[in-house]
This record gives sequence, structure tokens and C-alpha cells, in this order.
Amino acid sequence: MNYGIAFGTRVRKSPFFDATAAAGVTHFSTYNHMYMPVSYGDARGEYERLMNGVSMWDVAVQRQIELNGPDASELANLVSARDLSTSKVGQGRYTPITDHQGRLLNDPVTLRVSENQWWISIADNDTLQWCRAIAGERDMDVQVSEPDVSPLAVQGPLAEDTVASLCGDWIRDIKFFWYHETTIEGIPVHVGRAGWSRQGGFELYLADGSKGTELWNLVAEAGKPFDIGPGAPNYIERIESGLLSLRADTEDDTDPFEAGLERYVDLDALDFIGRDALIKKREVGMRYQFVGVKFDGEPVGTNADIWPITIDDEPVGQIRAACYSPKFKSNIATSLMNVPHNSPGTTVVVQTPSGPEHGVVCSLPFSSE
Amino acid sequence: MNYGIAFGTRVRKSPFFDATAAAGVTHFSTYNHMYMPVSYGDARGEYERLMNGVSMWDVAVQRQIELNGPDASELANLVSARDLSTSKVGQGRYTPITDHQGRLLNDPVTLRVSENQWWISIADNDTLQWCRAIAGERDMDVQVSEPDVSPLAVQGPLAEDTVASLCGDWIRDIKFFWYHETTIEGIPVHVGRAGWSRQGGFELYLADGSKGTELWNLVAEAGKPFDIGPGAPNYIERIESGLLSLRADTEDDTDPFEAGLERYVDLDALDFIGRDALIKKREVGMRYQFVGVKFDGEPVGTNADIWPITIDDEPVGQIRAACYSPKFKSNIATSLMNVPHNSPGTTVVVQTPSGPEHGVVCSLPFSSE
Repeated sequence: MNYGIAFGTRVRKSPFFDATAAAGVTHFSTYNHMYMPVSYGDARGEYERLMNGVSMWDVAVQRQIELNGPDASELANLVSARDLSTSKVGQGRYTPITDHQGRLLNDPVTLRVSENQWWISIADNDTLQWCRAIAGERDMDVQVSEPDVSPLAVQGPLAEDTVASLCGDWIRDIKFFWYHETTIEGIPVHVGRAGWSRQGGFELYLADGSKGTELWNLVAEAGKPFDIGPGAPNYIERIESGLLSLRADTEDDTDPFEAGLERYVDLDALDFIGRDALIKKREVGMRYQFVGVKFDGEPVGTNADIWPITIDDEPVGQIRAACYSPKFKSNIATSLMNVPHNSPGTTVVVQTPSGPEHGVVCSLPFSSE
Repeated sequence: MNYGIAFGTRVRKSPFFDATAAAGVTHFSTYNHMYMPVSYGDARGEYERLMNGVSMWDVAVQRQIELNGPDASELANLVSARDLSTSKVGQGRYTPITDHQGRLLNDPVTLRVSENQWWISIADNDTLQWCRAIAGERDMDVQVSEPDVSPLAVQGPLAEDTVASLCGDWIRDIKFFWYHETTIEGIPVHVGRAGWSRQGGFELYLADGSKGTELWNLVAEAGKPFDIGPGAPNYIERIESGLLSLRADTEDDTDPFEAGLERYVDLDALDFIGRDALIKKREVGMRYQFVGVKFDGEPVGTNADIWPITIDDEPVGQIRAACYSPKFKSNIATSLMNVPHNSPGTTVVVQTPSGPEHGVVCSLPFSSE
């Protein structure tokens, strides 16, 4: 399918928009009401840079929700299914957010910026308004806003060398999901060890939207010795690594257990929204589970539709995001497999548009076993 | 700017997707996490059909929020800045939705489907979760869900003849924003006199997502004698008509007065969320106002960026959506003009990318005066 994307002011541009245009972006999607680069027309090169070198991504669409004020920490804990009461200043945590019925609303990294200031770095959902609804209903003393903060990701095995040459070797000591406030040539940023891949790397949270092109160019320059190039959250690598993509992999009513996020849900923590529902859901059990599927056939590309998974012609699950994996030399996919067909090793049939293919359920992340 | 749009399962397809592809759609945007056709490559033809004939639009992105259950009417009134307590079954009303601080969250048509069942037909915002937050916080007895309902709009002066030949002449008696449940060749639909243009027309709310192509083809067939063709919410006509486009024309904290929706806000109604804040805002007054601007210069196309409006080189407003109007033979735009520069007749300078142009503030909708 080859269609153009329309531009207008309803959807916003990233501070890095001009820089990505200059870097040769070819395809966009939208995410959190912003244009998001997804391809520079070289799928294999973008994958290889991420796996073996270093890649830079405009992920400004990963908007921040700022909670600020006396009740900010209370609100952060209230909307988070994970216990954040022990979060230190500078520490981020991957955090499921659920509604009163235990449905997964978002899966951000939630960062304690200062004692009473939090940034929730969100997936594609208007969780800003969710937080405002809760704060408003409970008459809490907290400002809920979207700050001028736009992440630029530097990902891949040479990302650390790149960011060290830009910021100094001290960044090598940053722990996973911790962020440090600094400046790069006078540009205010928060540097964190994070990013939506399992290849390692950093996120630079640009805190001045007027400096997007400047920061992009500084990173490109610093990465030159490491052969840096532009990329985007990588469709293939994220499937190989089993990283959840909200909405791509989830339904409106998927709960965090079904999404494979059980280890981030602290049911023993102080009360949070959705806790009672999740306690019941844990007793009742999952309806389906986020797992992997390997399947045969000619290499597949990105699927624009959900494909059925069957056993004996009965539907037992859904292919959510499929690709051919260069690493595992097989078609692979994220899927939602109905219980009890979710056990690794279960043999299934994947109903691809070009016909049925033999498949097998796998745990995530995928492995060579 | 000529970029491709990427497809995947994070953003959903409309039930009419295949039909719009067959009809020659060339450009998409996204809206409410779905792909939305915005162009068939014939801007002038699409405009002319809407103004003088009949046009059919895939507006399935106008998702419905269903409120259903004993507390549905209470919730509908609670989230609506307009008094819906007198809404009859089958009656829809244009309804600002505000948060606790009086910020405009959405501007749907809210339809009473049955005594305790409502559909809120939303602009581009996750208002489903807003409604769930309020219902959850207040422990209300109401189901909040997204039903399988996808609007197809038939717009233009010949829309009534088209829909009458499809459904029967009884549809000519449907009042503005009223909807009637019926079937078309066995396909369940709600037919309403509505649509996002001022050229008149109907919306067919398809209530079975598997019948999208079938319904599209029936409408296309019924419209043949009237020379129907495909279109989309029309960028030029909606500016000429001064129809508000949420996000394109509004900021995060725009209130309904600033957005020009004062006549739909019932501050004397029973309590609703945002009422106290709006009473204060009414006293304090608007910061800016949604108004029109006519301006000189070569005909402009769609603006992807907001353009500044100045007086004596001082910023006094923003161009939000600009076009050349075939009807008024001038460049026109929707704008947010700071008070006190919002009065019709105020002379301003529009800072277009190709240079400053003389402009004048106008009331909306635009007129020939």
C-alpha cells in the first residue's frame, strides 16, 4: 500500500521534524497527535545500524505528562499499578497504568524528576486527560501538564560511545532508566539510559523545543566516527525482543497480566486505580496472553491487518505484528493467544493473506532455541 | 511535502477502507487511532461536488462512545457542558465536553439512542477513557464502551435525494441532528441529518463493521444519478463555514467560550464537570477567540504550521487553518485572535512563509460582506 500522509495543524510536528526531513525520512505515522518518522527507506540498513552500530530516532511523540505540586507523588502512585513510593529523584520505572476495571491504559516510563515533580513518558493514548480526571475528581493539589520535553533516542551497541563523546564519560555510569539533567552545548537535556529496543542506548530528553535541529545535528556529528544514521523505533527488532507496543499488541480491554506485564504490577502496594479489579482478574485468570509465534512460509512484511491463528480450523488467537527476522531466520510475530493455547511449543496455523502456515507458540523475547 | 503513511495494526482501518481504496483515495491522516481518508487527489472536484452536488465520506474515525445502563443519562449530563436532560430518544445535540478546569476536551454530537443509552460521536481525543474515569471515580452503574458503529457521511445539496432514493422519502422529514434506526438492504444503520459541513446532508451510522464495502457501494449506486463521488471532511468548506476542528483550531487549554461555543454551554443547567471553572472564566473573560481572517497574497494551500498574526510587529494571534476560498475569492483562515484584537474589521498582518500579507479579522462563518 502506497499512500501519502496529509499535513495540517491538527497533528503537530516534532521539534526534530526539519532535521528528519533533511536526513531523508520517507514515511510517517502519527502517535500522540504528532507526526512520527517510521522509515528512511532503508529497512535493512536501519535494522543493521541498530543491531551492530548506532541509530538515532526522533521519538518526540513519546510525550511527557508532568505532575507537579504537593500531591504529585500521591497522584503518580494512584495512577500507577507499580509501587513508585521508593522511586528516587532521577529514577524512572516502567509502569503499567490501568483504569478502574483493570484495563491497561498505558505503559510509560515514569520518572521522578524532583521530589514533587514526575514525568510520565507515554505510549499512544491521551493519558494526560486521564490524570487530569483523577486529580480533578479528587480535588488534588497538583498541576497536570505537558512540558516542553521531546525525547531523541540513540540506540545500539555504539550508542554509549556516541553519547559519551557528546556529554562526557560520566554518562557510562548512568544506570538503566535513570536520568540526569545536563546541557549539551548549552541545550538543556535530561540524559537517561533507556529506549525502546533491547540493543542498549540512551534517550536525550530535549527540554527546549526550539533547539531540535541543533541537538539532532550535534548527535549526528558526535556519532559520525561510529557511522551513526537515522532510524525509528524498529519494527523488526521490537518483535524479536518482545517489546509490547500498546494498541498494536493490545485490545481495548487487555489487562496487564494478559499483556505480559505481571512483574510490574504491585498488588501489595498502597491502593492504586484498578487494584481491586486486578486482584479479581488474577484469581479468574487470563483470557489470552501476549506471546510470540514463529511460523513458516515466504518472508512476510509488516501486516496492516490482524491475522487469525487457528487449531483445527478453530480461532485460538491473533497475529498482532509479524515480520521476517534476520536474527532468527524465520517469520516471527507478536500475538495474543487464547488460554490454554498460550504455552510455548503449542502448534498452530497462522492464517496469512497468502495462505495458512504452520507455526509454533514461543515465549518472548524470541530465542534461538 | 510528499511523504508516505506507514500501515500497521497500532492504527486501525475503517470498515470502509477497502471501498475507499477502490474509489482512489490518495492521502490519509489518522484520527482517533484510525486511518482517515483526506484526499482522492482532486481537491477542486471534491470541493465542487460538496458545494453543488453530493459527496460521500468515510468518517468512521468519528468513533462513538456508548454509555449504557441505569446511570447512563446521569453520566451523559455530567460530562456535557450542555443540558441534555431534555434530549428525546433519537435526538442528537452538539455538545462541548470540558474538564474540571473548563478546558475543552471534545465537541461531539451526543445522541440519545434509547432511554438509558447514549452515543457520543467524538472528535480526535480519547474521551472514552475520560468517561470511564468519571464513571469509575463515582462508582456509577454504567457501561462505557466503543460500539461497532461507523459513520458514512453523504453531504451536499443533492445528499437528501441520494439518501431518499436509498431509504425512502421518509428521510426528508428527519430533523437536524435527529437519527432513525433502519436497515438498508438488510444492513443495520442509524440515519441522521448531520455531517461536518454546512452544505446539508446525512450520516449513515453503519452498525455492522463487516458490511462497510457493501454499504459504500449501495450509496455510490444510489448517488449515481446525482453524480456522487468520494470525498472527505472538506478542508476548504469547513474554513469557509467556520466549523471548529478540535486540535487544529484549539490549544490544550482552550475553553468553550474561546472556541466560539458559548451558545452550547448551559451554565444554568444541573451540575456538570467544568461548570464552576467556566463560571469563573466567563467573569474573567476570554484570552483569545476563534474567529476568521481574510488576507491578501497569492492563493495559499494547507498550512502544516501555525502562522503568526501581528500588529505593529507584535504577535496578536495565530493562523490555525488557511486556504484559498473559491467562494470568497480570497485567502481565508481560522484563527485564534488575542483579545482585544478579535473584533471583526481589525486590520492585521499575516506572517505567511512567503512573507507578510495584509489581513482583516472576520466573524465566522465567512460572508461576502
